[in-house]
Amino acid sequence: MNDTINLLKSHRSIRKYKSDPIPQEYVDEILTSAQMASSSSHVQAYSVIGVMDQEKKKKLSILSGNQTYVADCPLFFVWCADLYRLKAACDMEQTEMISGTMENFIVSTVDVALAAQNAAIAAESLGLGIVYIGGIRNQSKEVTELLQLPELVYPVFGMCLGFPDQDPMVRPRLQTNMIYHQENYNTSKTTNELMDYNQIINEYYLDRTKGKVDTNWSKQMSNKFQTASRNHLRKYLEDQGFGFSE
Amino acid sequence: MNDTINLLKSHRSIRKYKSDPIPQEYVDEILTSAQMASSSSHVQAYSVIGVMDQEKKKKLSILSGNQTYVADCPLFFVWCADLYRLKAACDMEQTEMISGTMENFIVSTVDVALAAQNAAIAAESLGLGIVYIGGIRNQSKEVTELLQLPELVYPVFGMCLGFPDQDPMVRPRLQTNMIYHQENYNTSKTTNELMDYNQIINEYYLDRTKGKVDTNWSKQMSNKFQTASRNHLRKYLEDQGFGFSE
Repeated sequence: MNDTINLLKSHRSIRKYKSDPIPQEYVDEILTSAQMASSSSHVQAYSVIGVMDQEKKKKLSILSGNQTYVADCPLFFVWCADLYRLKAACDMEQTEMISGTMENFIVSTVDVALAAQNAAIAAESLGLGIVYIGGIRNQSKEVTELLQLPELVYPVFGMCLGFPDQDPMVRPRLQTNMIYHQENYNTSKTTNELMDYNQIINEYYLDRTKGKVDTNWSKQMSNKFQTASRNHLRKYLEDQGFGFSE
Repeated sequence: MNDTINLLKSHRSIRKYKSDPIPQEYVDEILTSAQMASSSSHVQAYSVIGVMDQEKKKKLSILSGNQTYVADCPLFFVWCADLYRLKAACDMEQTEMISGTMENFIVSTVDVALAAQNAAIAAESLGLGIVYIGGIRNQSKEVTELLQLPELVYPVFGMCLGFPDQDPMVRPRLQTNMIYHQENYNTSKTTNELMDYNQIINEYYLDRTKGKVDTNWSKQMSNKFQTASRNHLRKYLEDQGFGFSE
């Protein structure tokens, strides 16, 4: 349809990078692009910590569940929801900030995701590869200490960036009519179409792993959602000043 | 730098649309682009409700705080975090889903934001304008009933789409070094640079409103964060099956 849509449609996560550093002007363009994403009432409730220091990347890699590409990528971004700056603005105006609401938690979490996705697209448009790292939530407190995050800031996800040194397949998504509903949510869609999707995903894994991985989507998902993960989050977030009382 | 980055950097929210409908092939491209965004462990924990029905758009417009552009745009998307489909996958595998954790809430909220931002960019690349509607969280329960959302689904934000019938200015963002920290979060950045930013934003408002609006960022933010908003959210989300106990 156009080059931008072709770019969006060709996304694959990249987990192996060339050693080449990322030019500073690329980083600048990526950050400026990130900032132009929409933000709820212009609150801009996010920050990015850019990590290039090898020792620190190594620590973050271990804290994220030993994902080696966190250490190996030339630049690692830690995307944080950030209400700290807004508190500073309230302090300037000598008003008391009410920060600990579900609404403010959602606003800051969405804000950082929109900005990060713009960054991802800008990076890919420059020939870089990226992968999001949810594992940054494995040990939130340790990451917070390592990056000296103040109150009202929490790391939502990481992102590795670098020039790709692999060319993986695009992973097939759910059928579009599974995620898109016209006028009303249609609960009757799920079962039959999930079975079709299971077959698509099964073939994708068999193909990608030359027959070694023989699974499908519902198997993967049911495995994943049988156990609660990252159980520290509620307490950690409250310790950081986020709140969920209303 | 390239066309995609130029597109990202030229974003402005559009709130006035031509009456022309959006061609179906555009909608298809927007949805396919949305689906290619990254998703945590491939969970794809989101759904979109596309609303074209005039009566329903009118109701959503009222429920979102009387934002007339919700009724006036040719297509309104309601972006939902969605764990319902994952429960269906667990049911298929006869396993019990653990849904009510902070982690699952974050995953689904981030997933829908990444997909929506891809949709926004795809739409803008096709010459459409968009605006996010956080007001969809004003009356979550009523929106949920109107769109027949099942358990484990919540509307995170709306999005108006249409061909632009206005050409607003780009709103200046925070200085990039305010949102970007190298290696560690730098709390010392805030005060002086916020004062500079206040001046930039003050000039932008004076310019955009021909002198009528004379405010700045810290004033706006301190006004906004003095009161808690959308206090129903915690209870509503728990009623929908989301949880925050850990």
